[in-house]
Amino acid sequence: MKYLNNNEFCFIKKILSLPSKSDKNLVLGPGDDCAQLNQWLISTDISVENTHFNLQWGSIEDAIYKCVLSNLSDLNAMGAKAEWALLGICLNKSWGVQEQEKIVSAFQGVLKKHQVGILGGDTVSGDIASFQLTVFGRTPDGDKALLRSGAQPGENLYVTGELGASKAGLWALEHGVADKYPQLVRKHLLPEPPLALGPILHKHQVGACIDLSDGLSSEMTHIALQSGVKIEVDADKIPLAQGLEAFSKKNKLSALNLALHGGEEYQLLFTSKLPESLLILYLQVFKVTFIGRITKGEGVFLNTGDKGLIKVQPKVWSNL
Amino acid sequence: MKYLNNNEFCFIKKILSLPSKSDKNLVLGPGDDCAQLNQWLISTDISVENTHFNLQWGSIEDAIYKCVLSNLSDLNAMGAKAEWALLGICLNKSWGVQEQEKIVSAFQGVLKKHQVGILGGDTVSGDIASFQLTVFGRTPDGDKALLRSGAQPGENLYVTGELGASKAGLWALEHGVADKYPQLVRKHLLPEPPLALGPILHKHQVGACIDLSDGLSSEMTHIALQSGVKIEVDADKIPLAQGLEAFSKKNKLSALNLALHGGEEYQLLFTSKLPESLLILYLQVFKVTFIGRITKGEGVFLNTGDKGLIKVQPKVWSNL
Repeated sequence: MKYLNNNEFCFIKKILSLPSKSDKNLVLGPGDDCAQLNQWLISTDISVENTHFNLQWGSIEDAIYKCVLSNLSDLNAMGAKAEWALLGICLNKSWGVQEQEKIVSAFQGVLKKHQVGILGGDTVSGDIASFQLTVFGRTPDGDKALLRSGAQPGENLYVTGELGASKAGLWALEHGVADKYPQLVRKHLLPEPPLALGPILHKHQVGACIDLSDGLSSEMTHIALQSGVKIEVDADKIPLAQGLEAFSKKNKLSALNLALHGGEEYQLLFTSKLPESLLILYLQVFKVTFIGRITKGEGVFLNTGDKGLIKVQPKVWSNL
Repeated sequence: MKYLNNNEFCFIKKILSLPSKSDKNLVLGPGDDCAQLNQWLISTDISVENTHFNLQWGSIEDAIYKCVLSNLSDLNAMGAKAEWALLGICLNKSWGVQEQEKIVSAFQGVLKKHQVGILGGDTVSGDIASFQLTVFGRTPDGDKALLRSGAQPGENLYVTGELGASKAGLWALEHGVADKYPQLVRKHLLPEPPLALGPILHKHQVGACIDLSDGLSSEMTHIALQSGVKIEVDADKIPLAQGLEAFSKKNKLSALNLALHGGEEYQLLFTSKLPESLLILYLQVFKVTFIGRITKGEGVFLNTGDKGLIKVQPKVWSNL
């Protein structure tokens, strides 16, 4: 996992701008967390052995859990709940019956828990394993989804959960010190997106909403660009994961940078004018934190207090 | 590519029978060439480097062409035309800008040609490349699709095109004699499903319909099992690909076995009571051949003429 360079970024932009066409059934094309065809919000995610998961670090069940949850998180970001899934399973050709059984029961467990049914799929084998999921969900009223482009000046910026743990956990795995930081590693291997919150935010018609798969700096930039607004985020308000500061100090890393640029968090970042009296419930249940303001203008700026406003450069965290 | 063993067959059955649920939006679940959610027929196919395509044998463009066409073939088999696609692209991490540009233009070319728009997708990288496509299509009237279970006693069995070339071409590639059989190899690398025919058959309300991705013996067995009928196929009627008999003689293989059990043909196999006067048009345009009869009973039998009826054992050709 690494940060995208320009060449890779251009490739993704090009590939997703391929043949488009007008169709009354297409409510939303590429460019957000999901596409929308009629009432169906649709998202697809690939998880590749040695890139997204490493069986030295976690089990097949962990890999499937994370693949499914990261995909459900895309629906959550648009205010939708997953209902159906299509599977694409590539078995590692060295695997046998035991691994096949693990795969069946892992998909069974996580999909059943989230009330997602199987539409169908394809199963093949190859030199390495991969799992690709395509999920279908709907917003509570089947209406338009929450978009990255929905932010307006005057709104506040909120984030759920605590940040930085996933990237810290990955660092610990890569540097052979995973046993010292089990909680951070667990956050990397088994993320817990706030899946109940997306549909609630949709009902309350918040502004923009996105999930933190590519890191806070990158996702704030998406909202700022696609909404045509300026974002000012307060450095001291960004909620750092438990144990992150001690980990950072010990390993000479910056806790703020881990929280700002680390990906695969799957928390929600949203903008809203919701009154605090309504938010108090979410503050408790989903650990919603106020981290900044939406204003007129463009760009993302970090308010550091003593050093003033610093422009934030997005670092798109990717497996490309 | 090889034939499925029992263990693998059970795995596929198990994985596709995972969490199901009742939903008025689900018109058709797993078990046919596509699933159907509302009016949308949906299918997904994975193509993995060194399993489904080999860049020693064909180009990246060839691999993408085949991946897309095999997926469109699934919609064709149910009488639908593709309208939208979701991409899942795993780049080989050793690839650079040149390969990325090939991928963009290959998807652009084949999707534009077939008037398929891009809904979105995911792009990652890994030790080997893979392409996964999920396609969305509709039947001409948005109504129920052609199914494997639609065959009825009294109908005839028809197949399009000529069979056996794909497996023969693969054999030639695997045995280093590809240069001697360019036409057979081309049929393996660049299949040509009769994509206009599926929606036409849907309008004429034929019985069962399926595409020949797993081989004729296997697909006939699917129709017989799922329709609860017996199929009698005439050995001398099965249309052999041009050059197949000479190839088989030279390499000590059975042309009939290649046509009967070879996969990745993507021709259509369908049952119908259509009068010959109507079929005459299809006979010419899509090379439709009468190959057998549907009767009461069960199982698939090969009518060999002098040796009588022989039970056909399905050989499921698979990349698992």
